[in-house]
Amino acid sequence: MNWPARFARRTELMQRSAVRELLKVTGRPGMISFAGGLPAAELFPVEALEAATQRVFASRARPALQYGETEGVPGLRDWIADRFSSASNPLTRDHVLITAGAQQALDLLARVLVNDETPVIVENPTYLAFLSAWRPFGARFIPVAVDNDGLQVDQVEALPESESRLLYTIPDFQNPSGVSLSHERRRQLIEVADRRQTLIVEDVAYRALRFEGDELPSLMDLASGRGSAQVVQLGTFSKTLAPGLRIGWVLGEPQLIDKLVLAKQAADLHTSTFNQHVVLEAVSSGLLEEHLPRLKSAYRERCDAMLSSLRDCFPAKASWTQPTGGLFVFVTLPEGVSVRKLLAEAIEQNVAFVPGDEFFCDHQGSSTLRLNFSHSAPTVIREGIQRLGALLEK
Amino acid sequence: MNWPARFARRTELMQRSAVRELLKVTGRPGMISFAGGLPAAELFPVEALEAATQRVFASRARPALQYGETEGVPGLRDWIADRFSSASNPLTRDHVLITAGAQQALDLLARVLVNDETPVIVENPTYLAFLSAWRPFGARFIPVAVDNDGLQVDQVEALPESESRLLYTIPDFQNPSGVSLSHERRRQLIEVADRRQTLIVEDVAYRALRFEGDELPSLMDLASGRGSAQVVQLGTFSKTLAPGLRIGWVLGEPQLIDKLVLAKQAADLHTSTFNQHVVLEAVSSGLLEEHLPRLKSAYRERCDAMLSSLRDCFPAKASWTQPTGGLFVFVTLPEGVSVRKLLAEAIEQNVAFVPGDEFFCDHQGSSTLRLNFSHSAPTVIREGIQRLGALLEK
Repeated sequence: MNWPARFARRTELMQRSAVRELLKVTGRPGMISFAGGLPAAELFPVEALEAATQRVFASRARPALQYGETEGVPGLRDWIADRFSSASNPLTRDHVLITAGAQQALDLLARVLVNDETPVIVENPTYLAFLSAWRPFGARFIPVAVDNDGLQVDQVEALPESESRLLYTIPDFQNPSGVSLSHERRRQLIEVADRRQTLIVEDVAYRALRFEGDELPSLMDLASGRGSAQVVQLGTFSKTLAPGLRIGWVLGEPQLIDKLVLAKQAADLHTSTFNQHVVLEAVSSGLLEEHLPRLKSAYRERCDAMLSSLRDCFPAKASWTQPTGGLFVFVTLPEGVSVRKLLAEAIEQNVAFVPGDEFFCDHQGSSTLRLNFSHSAPTVIREGIQRLGALLEK
Repeated sequence: MNWPARFARRTELMQRSAVRELLKVTGRPGMISFAGGLPAAELFPVEALEAATQRVFASRARPALQYGETEGVPGLRDWIADRFSSASNPLTRDHVLITAGAQQALDLLARVLVNDETPVIVENPTYLAFLSAWRPFGARFIPVAVDNDGLQVDQVEALPESESRLLYTIPDFQNPSGVSLSHERRRQLIEVADRRQTLIVEDVAYRALRFEGDELPSLMDLASGRGSAQVVQLGTFSKTLAPGLRIGWVLGEPQLIDKLVLAKQAADLHTSTFNQHVVLEAVSSGLLEEHLPRLKSAYRERCDAMLSSLRDCFPAKASWTQPTGGLFVFVTLPEGVSVRKLLAEAIEQNVAFVPGDEFFCDHQGSSTLRLNFSHSAPTVIREGIQRLGALLEK
């Protein structure tokens, strides 16, 4: 009996993620990994998380180990609602669903919003695992280019209205490009979405990691109070606390949250009550206020190390983005360089990265690569970029 | 803008689970809950789990808090492969995928195996959240009745061959009926499946909770070495350790596991590395060998309390199953009793249960109810059954 042959129809739409497969190689000792989107493990607030865990065991071990509500632990939903409320956009726990990381938020949204051939506007390039989450549910992606000010909203406006039902965007320190949507374009996008009743899925996974410049308003905040522009926002503690806990969330209209709860009941009943309690303990005691400045300062230093090494070691005709936060720099090499060949050679030199074309839904970007700067110390970053530069010089 | 109206197609297939909704009422102080499938929180091995957590923090905090492989933590996959290996059916980590509880195992299997109108043979009644997990992917359920020896395999054999592609069963202490598939019927089922190349999804969530009689061979073990009979088995630590950790697994052919890994990548990247390490620490130190006898002895006492109270307090014309393990007793009331009305009155008397018709895919079972005996102490069980008996007497 042959599995794939008998049960192949839906799985044809599932593609093995090169990024996830790379993670296995990058565990090799001595490997300098610019692949993956791994936060720096040496910066995890281990002691504070251990203390939070002990407090959970001391104060509510049994409820934290028992089944819980699909919606999530009420105290954590309250904390998130409070954190993201604004005067124009007050939120309650009814606007919040706790998920197994932001990835599950994407999966649940696909179940509720996507049917066969549903058109979905996406940044091109965009988050690879968004594409692989939504593709099997039948999404038809409509790519819109990204420049240094983020998604080119003029191109969204130029699309036929029938194609403007749904839009997925990472406005802050986008994965993979590292760029942010400018304030002006945020206003413009909300206006277009308002006029066309576009639903915007706003992914703020990297938003808390700004190490330079002023915070820009979120699309959710800009949309609040407008007639029909609706934004559903998803976030995660993976980049601010630790990804191994798998705690993320969706913020949206209670009617939508209600549908997502039904999808989540079927998907996994609920997210680990234990981990939700640990995160709640940690953030209620002010851990983020203490930890985020430390994290951002380290990431700024790492990003600076990468940008200056790129200037020193990469060919004059290469260009790259200038992130003010997040985890990634996106590099465009001179035409004609084979990025796949470069990767094979780089891995022999114990350096890993992700080819940029992985992130384009239409297979563009053959001369681009994504470099992660959060995972390695500055000296390691300089060494890795030097090795890549030497390979490019050949 | 109205959510359900714009995005209703797929969500029409999602139904709010009465069981999950009931969990909210059952949290009310003073409520005696025979609803839900909650293990006894007072029996959780809290100290051992806290010690395991401390060992994880002491020995590998950073890898346990970092992203991990989609397949799961290798050491835990090895432990599970080892635990379920037999001479005729040797397993390695390549046969194992770690999931967010057994519920996610069901969800991932649906993604890989179910397309529009895929026929799926199910026990009738069966696990409610299985039905709600597989329905939105397009499963067409083919109900087969259950008696005191479990699934009526003769009825499976009588089905047309074209309807025998996939079968879902809980052979041990089935939810909701509490009955187990007899040894004879297990052999018969494997023979039928072998002849027809049926894929069997074997849910062993309750298998470790036998408190009476000898263990029966699993369908996976019976099928091993046969030509075409294939079994994929799913299990969980929710009933043996604690459900709040959300750690389950799938055991199957590596080709199938590989497809499930793709589905899981898109669903939530991976299951909490932290919780996997905690469970691995706990089970490697022999916690199950120490804890399970205690748990089973308590559940036997609770089951006995329920069965003897039913004899004392329920009408002579009512009948119920005689579980030798698991969490549930299934009651059939005399014709004409309205179980929905009984539930409304019971909740006023602070007693909750789940109407049995919830578990039938064809809305039969209107005079049945499922009673959980694991969640309450024997004295509480007696009090609750007395109250139900008094309501029935009226």
